[in-house]
Amino acid sequence: MVTVMLAIGLSVFAQVSNSSDSILFHKLYNEALKNGETDMNLRYLTSRIGARISGSLQAQQTVEWTKKVLAQYKPDSIYLQPVTVPHWVRGTKEISYYTVKGRRVRMDVAALGRSISTDGLLTAGVVEVRSWAELAALPNKAVKGKFVFFNRAMDAGEIETFKAYLGAADQRAQGAIAASRRGAVGALVRSLTPAKDDYPHTGAMSYDTAVPKIPAAALSTNSADLLSDALKKDPSLHYTLRMHCVQLPDVQSYNVIAEIRGTKYPDEYVTVGAHLDTWDLSEGASDDGAGLVQAMEVLRLFRATALQPERTVRIILYMNEEAGAHGAIEYAKQARLRNEKHIAVIESDAGGFAPRGFRIETTPEAMARFQQWKELFIPYKAGDIQLQQRGVDLVPMKEQATALISLDCDDSRLFYIHHSVLDTYDKINPREVAMGAATMAAMVALVSKYGL
Amino acid sequence: MVTVMLAIGLSVFAQVSNSSDSILFHKLYNEALKNGETDMNLRYLTSRIGARISGSLQAQQTVEWTKKVLAQYKPDSIYLQPVTVPHWVRGTKEISYYTVKGRRVRMDVAALGRSISTDGLLTAGVVEVRSWAELAALPNKAVKGKFVFFNRAMDAGEIETFKAYLGAADQRAQGAIAASRRGAVGALVRSLTPAKDDYPHTGAMSYDTAVPKIPAAALSTNSADLLSDALKKDPSLHYTLRMHCVQLPDVQSYNVIAEIRGTKYPDEYVTVGAHLDTWDLSEGASDDGAGLVQAMEVLRLFRATALQPERTVRIILYMNEEAGAHGAIEYAKQARLRNEKHIAVIESDAGGFAPRGFRIETTPEAMARFQQWKELFIPYKAGDIQLQQRGVDLVPMKEQATALISLDCDDSRLFYIHHSVLDTYDKINPREVAMGAATMAAMVALVSKYGL
Ligand SMILES: [Zn+2]
Ligand SMILES: [Zn+2]
Repeated sequence: MVTVMLAIGLSVFAQVSNSSDSILFHKLYNEALKNGETDMNLRYLTSRIGARISGSLQAQQTVEWTKKVLAQYKPDSIYLQPVTVPHWVRGTKEISYYTVKGRRVRMDVAALGRSISTDGLLTAGVVEVRSWAELAALPNKAVKGKFVFFNRAMDAGEIETFKAYLGAADQRAQGAIAASRRGAVGALVRSLTPAKDDYPHTGAMSYDTAVPKIPAAALSTNSADLLSDALKKDPSLHYTLRMHCVQLPDVQSYNVIAEIRGTKYPDEYVTVGAHLDTWDLSEGASDDGAGLVQAMEVLRLFRATALQPERTVRIILYMNEEAGAHGAIEYAKQARLRNEKHIAVIESDAGGFAPRGFRIETTPEAMARFQQWKELFIPYKAGDIQLQQRGVDLVPMKEQATALISLDCDDSRLFYIHHSVLDTYDKINPREVAMGAATMAAMVALVSKYGL
Repeated sequence: MVTVMLAIGLSVFAQVSNSSDSILFHKLYNEALKNGETDMNLRYLTSRIGARISGSLQAQQTVEWTKKVLAQYKPDSIYLQPVTVPHWVRGTKEISYYTVKGRRVRMDVAALGRSISTDGLLTAGVVEVRSWAELAALPNKAVKGKFVFFNRAMDAGEIETFKAYLGAADQRAQGAIAASRRGAVGALVRSLTPAKDDYPHTGAMSYDTAVPKIPAAALSTNSADLLSDALKKDPSLHYTLRMHCVQLPDVQSYNVIAEIRGTKYPDEYVTVGAHLDTWDLSEGASDDGAGLVQAMEVLRLFRATALQPERTVRIILYMNEEAGAHGAIEYAKQARLRNEKHIAVIESDAGGFAPRGFRIETTPEAMARFQQWKELFIPYKAGDIQLQQRGVDLVPMKEQATALISLDCDDSRLFYIHHSVLDTYDKINPREVAMGAATMAAMVALVSKYGL
């Protein structure tokens, strides 16, 4: 049976690919593993620049440094694409505790990204919910004037951790709006992590002009569990939060773009990218430092292996994925204005762990093509190619590109460290990052050679 | 094409498995992910017991602790299987340096496991080789009285890191014998790691009664590179090594065995195991702490999901995998004496990273069966099932068991930490260990239900 399947697979495979592609794959992986610069670059980025939230000095340093590195890899052209970005700062470290019988229990919290401050100490009661339905079912007086505590955990039993994340992330994204609509004074959100620990995980939240803005903070999972237990014993306990975050004026920033001009179809584009910015809590080794050095490495790999793409390959490093995808939106807008034909837009923003394949949003015909290429990736353990929408920075190109392609990595570790102080260089394995860079380069090579 | 392959796959799949197996898989993974005890156990093992080299007090503590944990999971029987093991100790930390123009350059070294001591400071010249052929080609006078420095690196371009490891491990295993045969006074071996760092990686070496025993040490890769550069400039430099290792008298130790009696074929065995011992440099979180807690978890998962195997499931924790596989050899000897019928012997000793599938040594008929089961593992990202001999503790059962099965894990990270001070709890991800335990339990469930 196995033999039968294999034989069918190979015969079709032979029609769409050939041994020159296998040789090319070998060259790219070999170069990345033996002479790769991803690790050197990631060490520099994490140790010398560090956290680089959009609008910050470090974000600007990242623009300048990545442009310098890309220039060393000798693209045919390199330029900055202006984009105006928000500049949110956390300010002094948050203070937070609940009070039961006059005793204060400290909570580990972090303001959610873009939250307003509390304007001094904000003290109120707390009501815990685990779903929108629970919130909707509460009488007004149970919510009004209180903190709404969104305590739905990521589903530990879900095999795809991205699904588990998405299954709980609505609380972070929409919690403050929903709570404010019911008259709450603040939103407390359980951190999106499978871990039970003391580290709060920040991330984007949003406001709605129709309701007042209220402060929103992430609680570490241990703090969330403590608070939930305390509320069971004393539903009338008081919770205190102080946050100093400020939304500063918007800042002029940039996407960084470098190109290798296509030899045959220079007006058709295959982009490969990652995002320049991080949240402010850590050096963002995984999100998205790894992706950033991988995207740059694709250019180096093309040059080092003397690979001349038939279609133009464009490295695009997006500014501000984390707080509104302004860079990606601007990129898509400019591409539309110039009427550029995009075959595929590719990104790496899944953590930089061992590559497993790709998640792709495309037409059925193009998907059949990707499935045929699958065999080429299997020897590199990256043959898991599935239809799925994933990358935030790809979405603005949805109408303009034939395929939106996200590098898929082993998803075990990402959410343990994501958007928290834990996202540091020591969590990253240099070989995994190098393999991911080669996997992206191989996909870029195929699309730029065959089209879709 | 994809659809065609899938349809063929599914129709055959339907003949050999059924939805009850899918449900069973779901139960096992869900239980491991939601209520698993692997992480709690691994934390205990690494923090409270730590390094547990065969013959040590900590090895004995590990025997007692694992027996206690297994007993809590309510096996039908549990017992210790006596095995006599060697007891090697490193002694005081090694001293090592080379001297050029009166200047000493310190080298990071660790005695290889089972090496003899140097009997004080041992100073001699060094000759570097990267292959057996290079050593063979050297004239006697170039080797006699010197250290032979085996400096072949793991092949960074090899996709399978186990292959890269095996492609260089012969230097560690056989270097001292080969060097001694040519009259050398010591063997220096480049550490088996893809990293460039300062940490020496120890591991088993061997002696041959036909030639004198000479001391053997691993050099960190940075030290090896430094020494190699220094030798190019001054081939007559002197190298000094002091090691205090001692081979103490053999010690009475144990394998730990727990069983769930088969309901239908109690005299047919499916074993699942890992090894109790480590090297002495670290707490062995990855090698093989993860495997140890996974093997114990298989018992817990069977009980928690009320799974009654038709064949007897035996958890077997082997003593002294690292320095001669004495436990595994004794296990196989006793199994032979009792004429026990072993269907499959399964182990986890690949680092405890994200499970990817299995490496199996078996008959073509049994392999076809495994390939049919593959579909069940794919939703859990563990469907990579290949013919390959791997596990050291399985080899003694080769003549007696239908299949030798090693859990295969993502291989990116293992050799960065393997057998060095870096093999600590913080390198391990709790979800990956839990997924591996469920993957082993699922394989045990299939083999104990269907046979081979
Ligand atoms: Zn990101
Ligand atoms: Zn081991």
